Amino acid sequence: MKVFKHPAREQWNEFLKRPNPDNKEIVESVASILENVKAKGDEKVLEYTAKFDNVQLKNLAITQEEFDACDEFVSQKLKDAMKVAYKNILTFHTTHRENYHVVETMPGVRCWRRALPIEKVGLYIPSGTAPLFSTVLMLGIPAKLAGCKEIVVCVPPQADGTIHPAVLYAAKMVGLKSIFKVGGAQAIAAMAYGTESVPKVYKIFGPGNAYVTAAKQMVFRDGLAIDMPAGPSELMIVADETMPSSFVAADLLSQAEHGVDSQVILVTFKEEYLKRVQKHLEAQLKELDRKEIAEKALEFSVGIIVKTQEEARDIVNEYAPEHLIVGLRNCNAFATEIFNASAIFLGNYSPEAVGDYATGPNHTLPTGGFAKMFSGVMLESFSKKVTYQQLTTEGIVNIGATVETMAEAEGLSGHKNAVTIRLEYLKNKEKEGK
Amino acid sequence: MKVFKHPAREQWNEFLKRPNPDNKEIVESVASILENVKAKGDEKVLEYTAKFDNVQLKNLAITQEEFDACDEFVSQKLKDAMKVAYKNILTFHTTHRENYHVVETMPGVRCWRRALPIEKVGLYIPSGTAPLFSTVLMLGIPAKLAGCKEIVVCVPPQADGTIHPAVLYAAKMVGLKSIFKVGGAQAIAAMAYGTESVPKVYKIFGPGNAYVTAAKQMVFRDGLAIDMPAGPSELMIVADETMPSSFVAADLLSQAEHGVDSQVILVTFKEEYLKRVQKHLEAQLKELDRKEIAEKALEFSVGIIVKTQEEARDIVNEYAPEHLIVGLRNCNAFATEIFNASAIFLGNYSPEAVGDYATGPNHTLPTGGFAKMFSGVMLESFSKKVTYQQLTTEGIVNIGATVETMAEAEGLSGHKNAVTIRLEYLKNKEKEGK
Repeated sequence: MKVFKHPAREQWNEFLKRPNPDNKEIVESVASILENVKAKGDEKVLEYTAKFDNVQLKNLAITQEEFDACDEFVSQKLKDAMKVAYKNILTFHTTHRENYHVVETMPGVRCWRRALPIEKVGLYIPSGTAPLFSTVLMLGIPAKLAGCKEIVVCVPPQADGTIHPAVLYAAKMVGLKSIFKVGGAQAIAAMAYGTESVPKVYKIFGPGNAYVTAAKQMVFRDGLAIDMPAGPSELMIVADETMPSSFVAADLLSQAEHGVDSQVILVTFKEEYLKRVQKHLEAQLKELDRKEIAEKALEFSVGIIVKTQEEARDIVNEYAPEHLIVGLRNCNAFATEIFNASAIFLGNYSPEAVGDYATGPNHTLPTGGFAKMFSGVMLESFSKKVTYQQLTTEGIVNIGATVETMAEAEGLSGHKNAVTIRLEYLKNKEKEGK
Repeated sequence: MKVFKHPAREQWNEFLKRPNPDNKEIVESVASILENVKAKGDEKVLEYTAKFDNVQLKNLAITQEEFDACDEFVSQKLKDAMKVAYKNILTFHTTHRENYHVVETMPGVRCWRRALPIEKVGLYIPSGTAPLFSTVLMLGIPAKLAGCKEIVVCVPPQADGTIHPAVLYAAKMVGLKSIFKVGGAQAIAAMAYGTESVPKVYKIFGPGNAYVTAAKQMVFRDGLAIDMPAGPSELMIVADETMPSSFVAADLLSQAEHGVDSQVILVTFKEEYLKRVQKHLEAQLKELDRKEIAEKALEFSVGIIVKTQEEARDIVNEYAPEHLIVGLRNCNAFATEIFNASAIFLGNYSPEAVGDYATGPNHTLPTGGFAKMFSGVMLESFSKKVTYQQLTTEGIVNIGATVETMAEAEGLSGHKNAVTIRLEYLKNKEKEGK
């Protein structure tokens, strides 16, 4: 951990800037994958899968037998845990359903909007060293809840050409059926352009490595929507002595174990406290299954000692972390002053880990400072809002002159005439009626 | 108007596909503009303004004098009309404010979310042949309502180096102050990267020509958010004899006058009716100020005669128009089956023109089929959603085992430990207490 004590504001950029690897190579490689899959479909997808995943597949879609078989390879304990997570995620996301109600902005001018599901969506479930069934729940539940008709799921195959049963079990729990063994940029390409096996979708969701992220950003230019750009995962903790230093260490490590490029930052007030956290880090690190990964990520981790909570607040807002844990006596008051962070965990008993799995809010969140302008995945990510307007004859009479004046001032006589012709029609009708 | 009578479904693609100009030249030109503005700031912006807008400016920002002077050049009639539009737009967008409420997904597991404003946003106001003050209202009102702190506005200068007073007046009405005389890709570049004059923003909004659209899509790859990709404006009308054919013609023309690339499509049921619409088109076209533009757009317009409302519905959903006018006896029932359209206008007295200016819903909408997965601009476009979670000791005890099980199954022992360490701490505390 690199420690900065009372850094001047001019120095902040030193420790707040994210690693920005020159990704020219990635962009070129991804561009060629996209182009080839677009042109040759399954043939190229299978070729890339052989090349990158070292698996020679015959079919991309999972078979009904594979799907059926997953049940017996998942322990009852895990099934029960998933059920709890499922319920909490569903409960939280359900609260964001929008009821439509009509707004009468003027008498006879009735306007409303509705959230309509995006018909076809693609969910990318990464799978590095672990089967990320939690991401199946986090993406699949809101997709189903929103009412998306066609939900395509891509998961990189394991070395033996299968998909981990826990991932399939989660998909089954959510009600997802269209599952393909394909990962990386070739998965994004397949969903963006469609292949013989993989249906084309309108919007692609899900985290992934640098290739996946580059592919998502590149298909955006081709008319696909994506959930958000996403990079390595991040955790910032702001803590004072009210938070046990062992908790802080455990939370930092839970982030560090994600990958060697995980961003881990602690902001605190006393050097003494920071040293205690470091001791716990050393001790806890030894017990970790993914010790090597966490150790590497910790090398680049940062500890910042500041004098005031205002400084801590400004550091958070400047950095805009994906995850923020606030372990302060006045954590709720502090949080009201944070306006750039994706997910905020308050107090001593809200480790990021609970939110990663089971509390309810989504774990697919913007990283890399994108919390400044992007939301995490949520129910609304799977729908688009459509507006409706319906004017009565009273309505067009009430608003008519306003529109005529504005249209004329913008030099659009056709717009004006669309109103005038109706006003005249109504006048004539009235006359006839008399 | 090209007419298709009872086309087979296999033929639909012929008339539903959008023009897709090879934009390699645009992309290259925009890429170089972005690069140059990024590197050299104001100097290059001024150079491009001289080149593309034929205006030699000294300063990009408008002066206080210019801003103050706008009042006297706007008629009271237009001021009053803008006030009506302002009120309606504000009323409609205000209804989408989200109250935050805490969801207890399990006892002691409290989760909620809040919409926080995007701190810095950029509004692009195009200005071709007309001063588009309506777009100032449509973008500025929700930006202010959302609470964005820094709102940068870019408007291409007129030939004399000024900005049209109606545009400035609308900005003043909304409370926008940071206004710059710059248009095209150079405006998008200035807001994306910042220059000596123009502040850097996090998200860019607003319609524009092909260069502006390409620039928006390209800065997205550089980490900027944008409202949506947008192309030429579109109107589809589905009408039967209950809608006077003169209304249909007026509405088609109000779309056609936007630009020579405007997309105008009528779907109807009787050849007779279509012919009447065409006659009105001819007659009304003669009266139009922007006759040449509308005439050109009409050349590519399409009239489709179908046999059933089901076919009409499927054509709409396949095309996903920006604007849809439904002039059918059962217009509301028909609209409930439309799931791909950005803004829907119902019945005989709801011309698109009223929504372009003053009814309340936003007029900045996805085109080019993007209605399938993008929403139009709305209050929520100017904020991002942040989630919060706060567990009590009861909460962590209730959810602890679930998270431990899932973390273990994903091979993330650090995640598990972040929970375990807290559960053990609580057990020890309990023991001590005994």
